[in-house]
Amino acid sequence: MNMTAAPAVEPRHGLGLDWNTSGPGELRRRIRAGRYSGHTGGLARGYVQANLAVLPAAYADEFARFCQRNPKPCPLLATSEPGSPRLPELAADLDLRTDLPSYRVFRNGEPDGDVASIGDLWQDDFVAFALGCSYSFEEALVDAGLSLRHWNDGSVCPMYLTDIECAPAGRFHSRLVVSMRSFTPADVIRAVQITSRYPRVHGAPVHLGMPERIGIENIERAWQGDDPVVAPGEMPVFWACGVTPQVALRAARPHIAITHTPAHMLVTDVRNASLAVG
Amino acid sequence: MNMTAAPAVEPRHGLGLDWNTSGPGELRRRIRAGRYSGHTGGLARGYVQANLAVLPAAYADEFARFCQRNPKPCPLLATSEPGSPRLPELAADLDLRTDLPSYRVFRNGEPDGDVASIGDLWQDDFVAFALGCSYSFEEALVDAGLSLRHWNDGSVCPMYLTDIECAPAGRFHSRLVVSMRSFTPADVIRAVQITSRYPRVHGAPVHLGMPERIGIENIERAWQGDDPVVAPGEMPVFWACGVTPQVALRAARPHIAITHTPAHMLVTDVRNASLAVG
Repeated sequence: MNMTAAPAVEPRHGLGLDWNTSGPGELRRRIRAGRYSGHTGGLARGYVQANLAVLPAAYADEFARFCQRNPKPCPLLATSEPGSPRLPELAADLDLRTDLPSYRVFRNGEPDGDVASIGDLWQDDFVAFALGCSYSFEEALVDAGLSLRHWNDGSVCPMYLTDIECAPAGRFHSRLVVSMRSFTPADVIRAVQITSRYPRVHGAPVHLGMPERIGIENIERAWQGDDPVVAPGEMPVFWACGVTPQVALRAARPHIAITHTPAHMLVTDVRNASLAVG
Repeated sequence: MNMTAAPAVEPRHGLGLDWNTSGPGELRRRIRAGRYSGHTGGLARGYVQANLAVLPAAYADEFARFCQRNPKPCPLLATSEPGSPRLPELAADLDLRTDLPSYRVFRNGEPDGDVASIGDLWQDDFVAFALGCSYSFEEALVDAGLSLRHWNDGSVCPMYLTDIECAPAGRFHSRLVVSMRSFTPADVIRAVQITSRYPRVHGAPVHLGMPERIGIENIERAWQGDDPVVAPGEMPVFWACGVTPQVALRAARPHIAITHTPAHMLVTDVRNASLAVG
């Protein structure tokens, strides 16, 4: 007997959950209780995960307008009542102060550390925004049989800053950030078809091939995420990325703002499949 | 007064029709009466035009199977009863012996001349097949604001013989023929979205970029149609082409077969928009 063999199914982060079948409510309860603080990618499979942005009311209207004008990078799923940490259309029990595994605090547009809850930072004038995230369309791609390299090798999807200016709104402005996934031409066509059905989670690609046409001078060097591998016979495909509103948020320099920590998302009770159109 | 000035709206082929508004029924009646024998492209706008193939019953089952197995190049819109020159689901008054402006006769798989009607060639065992045609999805592309170079300059869309083998059926076999249209990357994405809605008229592209990956060694030389112009910043996009079943028909070498003459299509009462899914 080999005493050093790893268990056949290793409990992720020692939680002992069956990660493939646990629902989003159970995951949120564990996070709320301080029992899980890791990445959410691949957890509560089948359910929408969202980007979070929390802003003082004096900035919220402009941010909402920025999202409305740039729906591909900023697909708004839900907006809270001012002062309320609830988004009942995403989950009845959701408490935005405790239910994300990690939060990033920004002061005057600069990151000022990550925290496990934001109850002590919450303000009566905070407005929360939940924005669609690529996890949803990536799940649809994988369910359709397409292969995502960064899912397979555990890397972070490469992201690039383009030369495409988003429509500004008040103090919020940014160039478009895109994420890149590469496929064979036949799978590029499938990827356009599949992600077109999900406009609330970035939707169809914004560009394919020809990275230089959107201001990407060296595709081998990611601006964020890991450097890509584009195999021979593959074409790079670019989707609008949820990092875009974070760049706009930094530009607006609110005295305080809070987002999720990258990869530590807001887990909702909304099914990915329910977002599909067509 | 300039006596040599052309009329503001020149009657096409001297017919005096208002070609933009005449319906398909009026066009068929004029063709049936021998008063029009030209191209049908751009006429009876909004209505489906179809490829025609007429075969003896001894070949019809195999051809039907070839179409079923290769729906992208051979999207079957309608099949006649044996011996009947009617396809009532395409037009109540349609008579396949007279209603196309020109027919091509094949004997033992080789073209044997074009004729204006096929009443004297019609056999009791003939089965007619109407197959979807790219005119329908091209109209959808143009209606969505995309620009088709061969529409603008009056050239014939370039076609290529690929190295992709279609699924054979009996004596029918062919490599896949594709038509090519080029667009900017953003319009490539739109073109995939739009044509995906029209599976009965070739549907989504089968390939994009990388012509060498489907056996096209020199994209500058079309196999049929005019040589292409692909502008800088454009990407070639390839659709399965209705010339494919004609190649298969020639391979099968039936003692007699009849098709439309290229660009002289079967004009139907079915609206293009009615074919859209999603």
